[in-house]
Amino acid sequence: MARIQLYLEYEGTNYVGWQTQANGLSIQACIQTALADLLGAPVSLWVGGRTDAGVHARRQVAVFDALKELPLRAFIKGVNARLPLDIAVVDACVVADDFHPRHMSKNKRYAYYISNRPCRSPLRRFTHWQIFKPLEVEAMQKGAEFLLGSHDFSSFRASDCEARHPIRRLELSHIEGKSGDEVICTFKGTAFLKHMIRSMVGSLVEVGKGRRPPEWIGSVLAQKNRCAAGPTAPPHGLVLEEIVFGERAHGSHTVLLNNADAEEE
Amino acid sequence: MARIQLYLEYEGTNYVGWQTQANGLSIQACIQTALADLLGAPVSLWVGGRTDAGVHARRQVAVFDALKELPLRAFIKGVNARLPLDIAVVDACVVADDFHPRHMSKNKRYAYYISNRPCRSPLRRFTHWQIFKPLEVEAMQKGAEFLLGSHDFSSFRASDCEARHPIRRLELSHIEGKSGDEVICTFKGTAFLKHMIRSMVGSLVEVGKGRRPPEWIGSVLAQKNRCAAGPTAPPHGLVLEEIVFGERAHGSHTVLLNNADAEEE
Repeated sequence: MARIQLYLEYEGTNYVGWQTQANGLSIQACIQTALADLLGAPVSLWVGGRTDAGVHARRQVAVFDALKELPLRAFIKGVNARLPLDIAVVDACVVADDFHPRHMSKNKRYAYYISNRPCRSPLRRFTHWQIFKPLEVEAMQKGAEFLLGSHDFSSFRASDCEARHPIRRLELSHIEGKSGDEVICTFKGTAFLKHMIRSMVGSLVEVGKGRRPPEWIGSVLAQKNRCAAGPTAPPHGLVLEEIVFGERAHGSHTVLLNNADAEEE
Repeated sequence: MARIQLYLEYEGTNYVGWQTQANGLSIQACIQTALADLLGAPVSLWVGGRTDAGVHARRQVAVFDALKELPLRAFIKGVNARLPLDIAVVDACVVADDFHPRHMSKNKRYAYYISNRPCRSPLRRFTHWQIFKPLEVEAMQKGAEFLLGSHDFSSFRASDCEARHPIRRLELSHIEGKSGDEVICTFKGTAFLKHMIRSMVGSLVEVGKGRRPPEWIGSVLAQKNRCAAGPTAPPHGLVLEEIVFGERAHGSHTVLLNNADAEEE
């Protein structure tokens, strides 16, 4: 037996989210089905960061125990051949038998993409929140700085969030204007509460629209009350960009897909 | 009567191309139907650059004669409300009565996007040609330079191309590596032959894969023979980025959509 780690990219548009649910097709179910077909036995995946319905991932991480020995590239090419085109394994490696991607992640980086111009964008319709009124990026950045560090994030937490406590630590909370019509909000932290990023972005957009001053973000945080925050941003602008692990977790990594292994075109 | 110019963005995935055809839905037909519904009479659109099936546009240009007077923003908001989500009018202005976007364009800029990593990318599946073997970008750039200037482009022309002559002039022919796993090919010229860009990209990729030296591009060009070139690149990596007009054409432009006019969210 070997514990295999998969790096995953997906567009979340057509799924109920990462986690298997009764109300529709999940990304987890698609990959578990593909793995089970490849390995001839049921497979359970543990994920680094659960993503909600409509949320995308550029480099999600999930692990499973492979009871059958296969060359690592089978877990890329073999699984990809069994997955729909909006989900793919982009890399794979062997990890320690006790490795768990959620418990052992050092931090996660998420980016939230906003298309900011006076009309809708067909090319960004599945990947950006489309906001037509111009956003004041500098004010948003000032607001974002209130979120840095360790805080009780109760104000930016979904009412059905099941986390044991609401204290989280943000290492990065950054707002950037790009190409004149795009705003990218980047957050990095050890862990996040349910809807935390979409909730922070929704409030920062209130600041960007000039409806609230940047200091309001600090005041919302201090109130520790979900009702104090702005509306929650829609899911389709959010991308799980990266999960970073500490040294130990990486020790047994064997990145496998090199050019010789490139899929045939 | 006023001649109205529309700036259009679209994802070409679901269409038979710009031009109305018997075999499926065209982008032109969608917009003409939306305009006819808005204006209560049939409308004919003249376009700046016809795009093939699967090709996208970030800033296509088309004009029509509006027999009914409407505020310009109606041609953005009113038309967008009648269009599918993969097509949008992003701006509109009044132009001279004899203005024609194809005959009067100074140049057109196209970009061709390649995802270049060992496995497929779900997030780029509709917008990038996915090439798994690593491309030598410098060799491609050297090859691209042979295409600059005025040439007989018969070697890079579809067999059913109806242009009167095969001489075209390229002002820009540039290959750029980006983010370690993306290659962007940009071309700017007064006009292009049918499949010219996809044909040039297909040959440049042969150079990038090391199958041909950069000089081979010059030799293909000199042969003036379609059979000398490499395979034609698939359509979905191609984007019409911009159409540039001379001073005169811009004289009567009135760009209209400002922040006060922003669509309601």
